[in-house]
Amino acid sequence: MYGWNGRLLRVDLTAGTVREEEISPWVLKGYVGARGLGIHYLLAEVDPACDPLGPENRLVFATGPLTGTRAPTGARYVVTTKSPLTGVLTCSNSGGFFPASLKKAGVDAVVFQGRAAEPVYLWVDDGRAELRPAEGLWGRTTHGTTDALVGAHGPGTRVACIGPAGENGVRFASIMNDRDRAAGRSGVGAVMGSKNLKAVAVRGTGKVAIHDPDRFGELVKGYLDRFNDTYRDEPPPLRSHGTAVTVMGTQNTGIFPTRNFQAGQFEQWEALHGETLTERFLVKARACFSCPIACGRVTRVDEPGYEGEGEGPEYETVYSLGSDCGVGDLAAVTKANYLCNELGLDTITMGATLACAMELAERGLLPEADVGRRLRFGDARGLVEFTRLTAFREGFGDLLAEGSLRLATRYGHPELAMVARGQEFAGYDPRGEQGMGLAYATSPIGASHMRGDPAYIEILGVPTLIDPHEWRGKGELVAEWQDTFALIDAAGLCVFFTIRNLVSPDRHIRPTGILELLNAATGAGYTLEELERAGERIFNAERLFLVRAGSGGEHDTLPPRMLEEPMPDGPAKGMVVHLREMLDEYYRARGWDARGVPGPDKLRELGLG
Amino acid sequence: MYGWNGRLLRVDLTAGTVREEEISPWVLKGYVGARGLGIHYLLAEVDPACDPLGPENRLVFATGPLTGTRAPTGARYVVTTKSPLTGVLTCSNSGGFFPASLKKAGVDAVVFQGRAAEPVYLWVDDGRAELRPAEGLWGRTTHGTTDALVGAHGPGTRVACIGPAGENGVRFASIMNDRDRAAGRSGVGAVMGSKNLKAVAVRGTGKVAIHDPDRFGELVKGYLDRFNDTYRDEPPPLRSHGTAVTVMGTQNTGIFPTRNFQAGQFEQWEALHGETLTERFLVKARACFSCPIACGRVTRVDEPGYEGEGEGPEYETVYSLGSDCGVGDLAAVTKANYLCNELGLDTITMGATLACAMELAERGLLPEADVGRRLRFGDARGLVEFTRLTAFREGFGDLLAEGSLRLATRYGHPELAMVARGQEFAGYDPRGEQGMGLAYATSPIGASHMRGDPAYIEILGVPTLIDPHEWRGKGELVAEWQDTFALIDAAGLCVFFTIRNLVSPDRHIRPTGILELLNAATGAGYTLEELERAGERIFNAERLFLVRAGSGGEHDTLPPRMLEEPMPDGPAKGMVVHLREMLDEYYRARGWDARGVPGPDKLRELGLG
Repeated sequence: MYGWNGRLLRVDLTAGTVREEEISPWVLKGYVGARGLGIHYLLAEVDPACDPLGPENRLVFATGPLTGTRAPTGARYVVTTKSPLTGVLTCSNSGGFFPASLKKAGVDAVVFQGRAAEPVYLWVDDGRAELRPAEGLWGRTTHGTTDALVGAHGPGTRVACIGPAGENGVRFASIMNDRDRAAGRSGVGAVMGSKNLKAVAVRGTGKVAIHDPDRFGELVKGYLDRFNDTYRDEPPPLRSHGTAVTVMGTQNTGIFPTRNFQAGQFEQWEALHGETLTERFLVKARACFSCPIACGRVTRVDEPGYEGEGEGPEYETVYSLGSDCGVGDLAAVTKANYLCNELGLDTITMGATLACAMELAERGLLPEADVGRRLRFGDARGLVEFTRLTAFREGFGDLLAEGSLRLATRYGHPELAMVARGQEFAGYDPRGEQGMGLAYATSPIGASHMRGDPAYIEILGVPTLIDPHEWRGKGELVAEWQDTFALIDAAGLCVFFTIRNLVSPDRHIRPTGILELLNAATGAGYTLEELERAGERIFNAERLFLVRAGSGGEHDTLPPRMLEEPMPDGPAKGMVVHLREMLDEYYRARGWDARGVPGPDKLRELGLG
Repeated sequence: MYGWNGRLLRVDLTAGTVREEEISPWVLKGYVGARGLGIHYLLAEVDPACDPLGPENRLVFATGPLTGTRAPTGARYVVTTKSPLTGVLTCSNSGGFFPASLKKAGVDAVVFQGRAAEPVYLWVDDGRAELRPAEGLWGRTTHGTTDALVGAHGPGTRVACIGPAGENGVRFASIMNDRDRAAGRSGVGAVMGSKNLKAVAVRGTGKVAIHDPDRFGELVKGYLDRFNDTYRDEPPPLRSHGTAVTVMGTQNTGIFPTRNFQAGQFEQWEALHGETLTERFLVKARACFSCPIACGRVTRVDEPGYEGEGEGPEYETVYSLGSDCGVGDLAAVTKANYLCNELGLDTITMGATLACAMELAERGLLPEADVGRRLRFGDARGLVEFTRLTAFREGFGDLLAEGSLRLATRYGHPELAMVARGQEFAGYDPRGEQGMGLAYATSPIGASHMRGDPAYIEILGVPTLIDPHEWRGKGELVAEWQDTFALIDAAGLCVFFTIRNLVSPDRHIRPTGILELLNAATGAGYTLEELERAGERIFNAERLFLVRAGSGGEHDTLPPRMLEEPMPDGPAKGMVVHLREMLDEYYRARGWDARGVPGPDKLRELGLG
């Protein structure tokens, strides 16, 4: 088969065995890959009521048909499991080089099940795969683990692993690959840790078979030529300044979350801006496999107390550990980011949970004794100190390790956790960006900017600008974007290139470029309708898991701050999220019932009956 | 993969090579198999303008996903090529045991291309395949060839081959398998002969892999149990008396074609009736692979001059060689049938061409000198004599070998050839069965009762009875039936069991049972909509070939006798075919334009863009 390997590794950690299975070509076409394969196997094999950190939960690593190909940004994989943070589904994805190697090793997906008696890692050597003891690795940082495995298996080995946070069951522990790329969200690293699985190391030297290499090459060349034409005079802003270049846009529209979303503009925004990062700490830009953008930041900090080297921070990190915590010290933010990477923590939830703790503390709701010291917004030292404590669940870190909703609930104020479905918001205050409010509320993994990011169309004007304050029409728009993002994730592509270059330039984003590339790569002969249907299928399958896990429409909501407290100042002053109105429109657009449940007709239409 | 082997043999007769190719799983799902695969490869590889008997034509043998499985009647294969009779597409299918063996040998399809320098046959031995010289076989009958190959390769060898008619380029030469089963129509045997390919011999001892054996077994058992329940007290009429049992129905409705369609009732009908056949000649019923019906007739004739043994006649044969030639002598009809089988001729076109010649002769349009003797309706001896001459193209047989349209045209009266798109009608006078008239006119292979047989619903009342004289509503109905028949052919099933048992019992026949069996067998997860779409895709792909070959809507027509000469007597007295009205409705139902051409939207919708 082309594009896909059609091969799944089933790793039974309890039994210590690795078996190969064929993935039905029909499942591959219908679910495309990566995120689609993840939900396909989760829905088929995981009890929605299971304990996310128990052996009955499963963890799926999956690549897409374009992963490991020369398709621009064909670099990504998706981790799907039941989340210990949200208690329902999650999928978290990452780029780098590990995913392409996994694909080149002849594997489309790995299903981990059970729990190993002793720490192990999976070694995939171009198709042969086995579990090995991870004795010398347990307790080590992600960098230490990666370096040890590359040392053991030789150059060209690619590693995804957890750090101490995953070992210690931090509910927002990440899985790090290639040292600093993160499948960050919802605690996928904690699930990996609960299984005593420290790492996956891969050597993949094969070539992904392409159905029509001439056509595929021609398409890739066309896209890259156009990309290079666009940036002939000046490199893309994402390469020059990384994703933190977004700070200017969100600050200017008054949706840059500040002090746990108490405000939408941060007075020290310039200190966190991508251009500042470039000036102060950038060593070089770094690209993932087959990516022409290179938004990754290799940075070095020499400031006393914050010394370090690594990658980051991203925009989401300068929001969460920066403005949201009221911290304008980019050195501190960057150092905390390094720690998150090394210890295996999601920077978004780490920062947002700290921000929540800061607000609780400032309001006198969180006793200083519990924290161990005074905690206030703007506490730059605290970022570093508490990140470390969280990963090891030491002291107050043990409470932070539970995430903001459990923390705020413990102190009687769940409404102060800026979450949807138990997961912390990304760096966009939805009061000034209505579509994002709806996207947070309906994202299958809890609040996320990566499950149909309306910021493109509401803030960046890509492919066209739609008023961010308008709520009418956003139901349909968000549904459409969510399905397209599902497709991008499933194909193994990165949103950054794809959303600007591989969809038709219209308010209705149609995955025309993805269609061309997929058909040339796989020979699956998708029609545009079939492909769009596949995106919708994936999103609805995820919804099905949510509903079965008891998280249907009643959980499509936002904290009262978003719904009832008008934005206090800035361009979005006076606004709240018109969630109810948007939800009604959204459910209609999706063909779901008034309780947010896909009906039998919709499920049949999608082959999910 | 399940259900399908995913494997095609490409036999280059010019080069003398056999190569294996993978068939894309998407092609398999989208075209299902057999008839679908045939048109897929024909459309992709054959110039619609090529000479059907030249080396550039290709000949595709293909099985379906249910061929060789325990699905009731999962016995069939389809031969697709450009026809030397109609000058456009044809596909002709057959049951028996050869198709199941081909499938069990690991092959879904064989594409024959080029032309061998010397006669050869293809030997497929459980996956290994090679061309071998056919020196001792050329010139032999189908029975002689089959026996020789079974002798050479041992018991269990299954053979499809041509007789002298195919070698001699008779435009309606058949390909016979298992001695007496015929892929009979449109001259597929002449194409095989033109390639110097005498036979295909197969030993297939593998097992077709089934996706969900438990479910599949349960479904098959359910269908067979219901079938056996229905016929608990009395065996099915098709087993008792063969397809010739249909004589009573067509005679009673006045559509039993008589004397080249000059009448719709035949005074000697009882002599040709299935029950008479049973009484006089039946040795035993014979079933194809995995068929619970057993409509095949093993017969023996001891009448002087007509002595013989073999299989047949079918209903279509007692019409064509019987009533249509005004012959009520079943012994003569049966003997001519034996000869057609042994020499490799289509009984329908053989009889209908003789009937046309008889009418020409009776009207004084065909000089006796050209025939070599006096020829009149009712000439029982003539059946035997001219069948033999036709196969060898001797004397008048050389003109008969061209089929009725070329014969009648030669004598200046093409209107006396009872054909659509150059192929002779089946045994139903469409004036008394309007839907059949539309089916003849729009059948992709020229007139046929097997490309959406409305007789079920217009004559037999299966699944329900619709007035055969009514033309309104037939456009939509015929389109629907054509697509369903395409699906049945593609799946590898026989219409006889399927149309009564595997579709929903409604005027709208929906392939519900086929869906269940296909999904259990293949794991392809078809939705009902996808499956119906596949049937439509196949039919439209065939239409596309017709249009490209210059045979679009202007050829969707019938002879003036059907359109202008009212039926002279009987229950259908006074009727003509309301073709124009039905065609308008039909094109609309199909989403074709007024010239009968599928538009760009329809083609895109079907992935044929």
